[in-house]
Amino acid sequence: MAGNRGVAYVKPGVVEVQSIPYPKLRMPKSETDPFGGKDAPHGVILKIVTTNICGSDQHMVRGRTTAPPGLILGHEITGEVVEKGNDVEMLNVGDIVTVPFNIACGRCRNCREGKTGICLTVNPARPGAAYGYVDMGGWVGGQAEYVLVPYADFNLIKFPNKEKAMAKIKDLTLLSDIFPTGYHGAIQAGVTTGSIVYVAGAGPVGLACAASCHLLGAAVVIVGDMIPERLTQARSFGCETVDLRKDASLADQIAQITGEPLVDSAIDCVGFEARGHGSAASVEQPATVLNSIMEITPRRRFPGNSWIVCYRRPGRRGRSGQDWLLKHPHRARLG
Amino acid sequence: MAGNRGVAYVKPGVVEVQSIPYPKLRMPKSETDPFGGKDAPHGVILKIVTTNICGSDQHMVRGRTTAPPGLILGHEITGEVVEKGNDVEMLNVGDIVTVPFNIACGRCRNCREGKTGICLTVNPARPGAAYGYVDMGGWVGGQAEYVLVPYADFNLIKFPNKEKAMAKIKDLTLLSDIFPTGYHGAIQAGVTTGSIVYVAGAGPVGLACAASCHLLGAAVVIVGDMIPERLTQARSFGCETVDLRKDASLADQIAQITGEPLVDSAIDCVGFEARGHGSAASVEQPATVLNSIMEITPRRRFPGNSWIVCYRRPGRRGRSGQDWLLKHPHRARLG
Amino acid sequence: MAGNRGVAYVKPGVVEVQSIPYPKLRMPKSETDPFGGKDAPHGVILKIVTTNICGSDQHMVRGRTTAPPGLILGHEITGEVVEKGNDVEMLNVGDIVTVPFNIACGRCRNCREGKTGICLTVNPARPGAAYGYVDMGGWVGGQAEYVLVPYADFNLIKFPNKEKAMAKIKDLTLLSDIFPTGYHGAIQAGVTTGSIVYVAGAGPVGLACAASCHLLGAAVVIVGDMIPERLTQARSFGCETVDLRKDASLADQIAQITGEPLVDSAIDCVGFEARGHGSAASVEQPATVLNSIMEITPRRRFPGNSWIVCYRRPGRRGRSGQDWLLKHPHRARLG
Amino acid sequence: MAGNRGVAYVKPGVVEVQSIPYPKLRMPKSETDPFGGKDAPHGVILKIVTTNICGSDQHMVRGRTTAPPGLILGHEITGEVVEKGNDVEMLNVGDIVTVPFNIACGRCRNCREGKTGICLTVNPARPGAAYGYVDMGGWVGGQAEYVLVPYADFNLIKFPNKEKAMAKIKDLTLLSDIFPTGYHGAIQAGVTTGSIVYVAGAGPVGLACAASCHLLGAAVVIVGDMIPERLTQARSFGCETVDLRKDASLADQIAQITGEPLVDSAIDCVGFEARGHGSAASVEQPATVLNSIMEITPRRRFPGNSWIVCYRRPGRRGRSGQDWLLKHPHRARLG
Repeated sequence: MAGNRGVAYVKPGVVEVQSIPYPKLRMPKSETDPFGGKDAPHGVILKIVTTNICGSDQHMVRGRTTAPPGLILGHEITGEVVEKGNDVEMLNVGDIVTVPFNIACGRCRNCREGKTGICLTVNPARPGAAYGYVDMGGWVGGQAEYVLVPYADFNLIKFPNKEKAMAKIKDLTLLSDIFPTGYHGAIQAGVTTGSIVYVAGAGPVGLACAASCHLLGAAVVIVGDMIPERLTQARSFGCETVDLRKDASLADQIAQITGEPLVDSAIDCVGFEARGHGSAASVEQPATVLNSIMEITPRRRFPGNSWIVCYRRPGRRGRSGQDWLLKHPHRARLG
Repeated sequence: MAGNRGVAYVKPGVVEVQSIPYPKLRMPKSETDPFGGKDAPHGVILKIVTTNICGSDQHMVRGRTTAPPGLILGHEITGEVVEKGNDVEMLNVGDIVTVPFNIACGRCRNCREGKTGICLTVNPARPGAAYGYVDMGGWVGGQAEYVLVPYADFNLIKFPNKEKAMAKIKDLTLLSDIFPTGYHGAIQAGVTTGSIVYVAGAGPVGLACAASCHLLGAAVVIVGDMIPERLTQARSFGCETVDLRKDASLADQIAQITGEPLVDSAIDCVGFEARGHGSAASVEQPATVLNSIMEITPRRRFPGNSWIVCYRRPGRRGRSGQDWLLKHPHRARLG
Repeated sequence: MAGNRGVAYVKPGVVEVQSIPYPKLRMPKSETDPFGGKDAPHGVILKIVTTNICGSDQHMVRGRTTAPPGLILGHEITGEVVEKGNDVEMLNVGDIVTVPFNIACGRCRNCREGKTGICLTVNPARPGAAYGYVDMGGWVGGQAEYVLVPYADFNLIKFPNKEKAMAKIKDLTLLSDIFPTGYHGAIQAGVTTGSIVYVAGAGPVGLACAASCHLLGAAVVIVGDMIPERLTQARSFGCETVDLRKDASLADQIAQITGEPLVDSAIDCVGFEARGHGSAASVEQPATVLNSIMEITPRRRFPGNSWIVCYRRPGRRGRSGQDWLLKHPHRARLG
Repeated sequence: MAGNRGVAYVKPGVVEVQSIPYPKLRMPKSETDPFGGKDAPHGVILKIVTTNICGSDQHMVRGRTTAPPGLILGHEITGEVVEKGNDVEMLNVGDIVTVPFNIACGRCRNCREGKTGICLTVNPARPGAAYGYVDMGGWVGGQAEYVLVPYADFNLIKFPNKEKAMAKIKDLTLLSDIFPTGYHGAIQAGVTTGSIVYVAGAGPVGLACAASCHLLGAAVVIVGDMIPERLTQARSFGCETVDLRKDASLADQIAQITGEPLVDSAIDCVGFEARGHGSAASVEQPATVLNSIMEITPRRRFPGNSWIVCYRRPGRRGRSGQDWLLKHPHRARLG
């Protein structure tokens, strides 16, 4: 049997590549017994083609969660099918596929209603699951050589042409999480033809969101950040930018661009490790982005016109989930 | 191996119970080779508990389709699981289940978008499939002792309590087609809290639709038919009724009930074998119900406020499908 | 000219009936100059037929807002048209109408998109307005003899038959706020055919919500409260009830009713003056209801399956609106 | 008082500029008494800036309707406000506005539900109205010097900057009908990010639809027509094209472009004066476009994935409206 290696969380600030078992077509029983559950004839084993490090991985690596040592990271996966169960009908060995980060069975009540983010099957502890993430069902992550994907016909998206896919694989690797997370934020914030949009944060998700806004027909996409290189990148594909290190308020900077201190939609692509603006930039202020968004959407303040990408923080038992949800009204996508 | 028997279409006007093969966990290859396709580890074999005769079956039996002799009828099925494939996770032998008449894989693009009525997997000839129906994928029908159901986790709905289910099995048998077809018509016609509704036809689907309108909060549900016993049945659970044998126009009869010759929503539960009113009652007039509905919805004439239950007529190759669709704008559910 | 009288807020805990000016067909300029704005040819003057005291009024009367002395209360109004502007086309003097509590112009961008709760026209200070409420646009309230209603064709709903309306006026008075607020909560929480629902609070809005759940086809409606008479009232029209004074957890009490400690939808009809359960009943705990709802919806936790009726607290400048919204994610309806 | 002139329909094939009365702020009583109704304090009088000839006008001019001699044509209007009623709040004399072709009051039940295309107020004979069109309410058309627009705050869209608007007025004139008609078709056909789309017809509406598909994020937009210059125009802004004069089937030509004889969405922008392809090009075949669309959407055949722009033919009393609707399932927008 082939061997396998993966990136393991060791302790706060430390990860390392470890030898790990080659995956089986079996469901996880727990984080410490990832193939101890029942058979998964609906699953495939992928040889990893590309994988990315997510901002969400950093929460674990920084020690802000209860992730156990040995957890194999990685929920952004593109791979090649090397083995498949007897109930995989739409995929064949050799196919190149992108793997949506959130795992779903496609058969439970929630999945049948389209709510695949809260699948009832893939995580015995609570609805919803992901690869390589604390408290998300015990699935081995894909920062590895090989990984199991269950319910493959339902979960995977095959690239129709292998050669064309490999030629653009560094773009296509964004399809597993980064791009759809940004796109989802834009959709939820109601971005549409002619929208004036503010995207808070020009990291990978923020830039993916800004590109999605263009794709959705936005008239003006304004991106804010405190890192000049990120803003340069945003301008390179047609965004307007706001440098949040300046003393001018966000509203004033927006007014300089569009003539009004208002936008139609705003999306928080920073997340709960946000810091303050200006002199407060050295302090973590989880709500700072949401507060700034509210200042520029007073005429449109309505569920659906602002959206927070991300924000479910698993494995933080020292703080009540209830309190967390109160502060993070929409649990969207792990981004 | 157990034997099996089913109701076969022989020729126009003639059906008979025939000995047929016990089902296998295999997909159909064609109408004449129903278990010649690939393995179906996602399937179950059901022992039929109840089954119904649909109005749609009558189109075949009357010889109005190209149904081949030997076709086993029956798409309204309630059954008990007696065997299951190795990828059936949510059902066990002994479970009592209701079987939605339209078959879907839950994995293809259309199913993932919720459009299970046009599943791309279960019928090689065209999107969409059903049990025991001409041109609908070659699936053996359930007016039989045993039947195969594929993609069982996705398709089947289990009754949580077997004894309670058996105690009401004559009601629950309506869940496979008749009741949801009527309910679907009401939903599509926009029936909601306070609606005034006209339901054309007091056959099983019409009565199911009328009951659904009550469930959806309609204020007044008016049912029209030409058979007094059906109208009596409609009145028995709170409907108003219109006797279409009378010379008074439908609009006038509605005005006598509500004070206005108008309704908010109307649903055609008669179908393409409709006949005229009054002196035209002996002639088939496929459009007569739709025309009468239009007279009483002039202020609400909008996609969504009238709805035609049913109306996909498979197996009628002498007439172009295009022409058919033109006359039957919404292909809804086989009812 | 006729005189007028209204219920004025005097100071915390004190209201009194005062003589006030007869309304004019003019828009408010401010809370202290309610008819100092421009002409309102779209308005009508109503003679009040019925009016109610809202739970929201109590926030003002208890001194929890910045309501100024002299503010005339009352946003739940049923009235008779006694005068109309020259651009009122659909109403005539003598008509009996119900008045939705939230005022909207029907012409601005938000109204044209159906977001009448954040109308941009009727409150110069911020989107959205209501009669007789601090910071909601300076509109004189309807706990009075006469009141102005602007944009009358758009805002008002006429009862078609005056005599029939007067015969049921104590029911119909619920249409201005209480009933639609409860109904709105049920809709937003996704209550539909067959739902199992928990309604927190059996005050007027909670009972209206429970009745709405029945109207929407819910299978089981469970109402929780700490006042026995309210629970008796809920049971009188078919609800199940949970007595929150008991030591058993909410989840356990629900499991005793349905067999599972879960519901499909839950609606908070208590509001921000909520108190704790059991021994914590004497302390205000604004989040207690939301927290309890989360315990019983773990499998359905999704935007849309729980809903908080109410929760915009105008006139509380000592506390940042941003912080308020963080804690009250959906600004729904003033209830 | 100023004079007025307008383009009048005289007889089949003949129109002429005639002197007509300057408009009043009054509603029409009938086609022959256009200002004989009640006062319209909600209306404005516009001096026409631009106006267009619609394909729908041609049906009247060709004598295919019951349009009476003297009917002033024109429902595509951009104008300047020169007079306003006392209940116009959001517009001022001098404003430049675009006029949506379908007239609505913004106050009736249908308008309050967003169904402005079937407004109950603006046409006594039936729901829905338009300027300068037979059987559409008696409104004088805008191929004139001056025109009345009722319910101006609700109907009109003001260009925020007059100078900038005049500089692009030949583009902006498309906003009254042509562009939104094409956009509406694309929306109704479900065009979204990544769609492969076929647009039948490269006239003004077809090209507007194709541009809208790009704006909505379509991956490939294929336009079909029989006039080479139109196809060249389509290619000039990034469309693929199909020359319908060729003998190759539409499906084959699409397969040559995308590799598959299928599209995700298709929109008929030809209308009921469509002709056949190839050798049938000299004969009118109203259903030919719909039939061709069905051939290329077999996997997506679902309400919403194909759409017919237009198709309400007023004033054709020799043919029953019912029959017409049967053949034209979605009455969309007058285009």
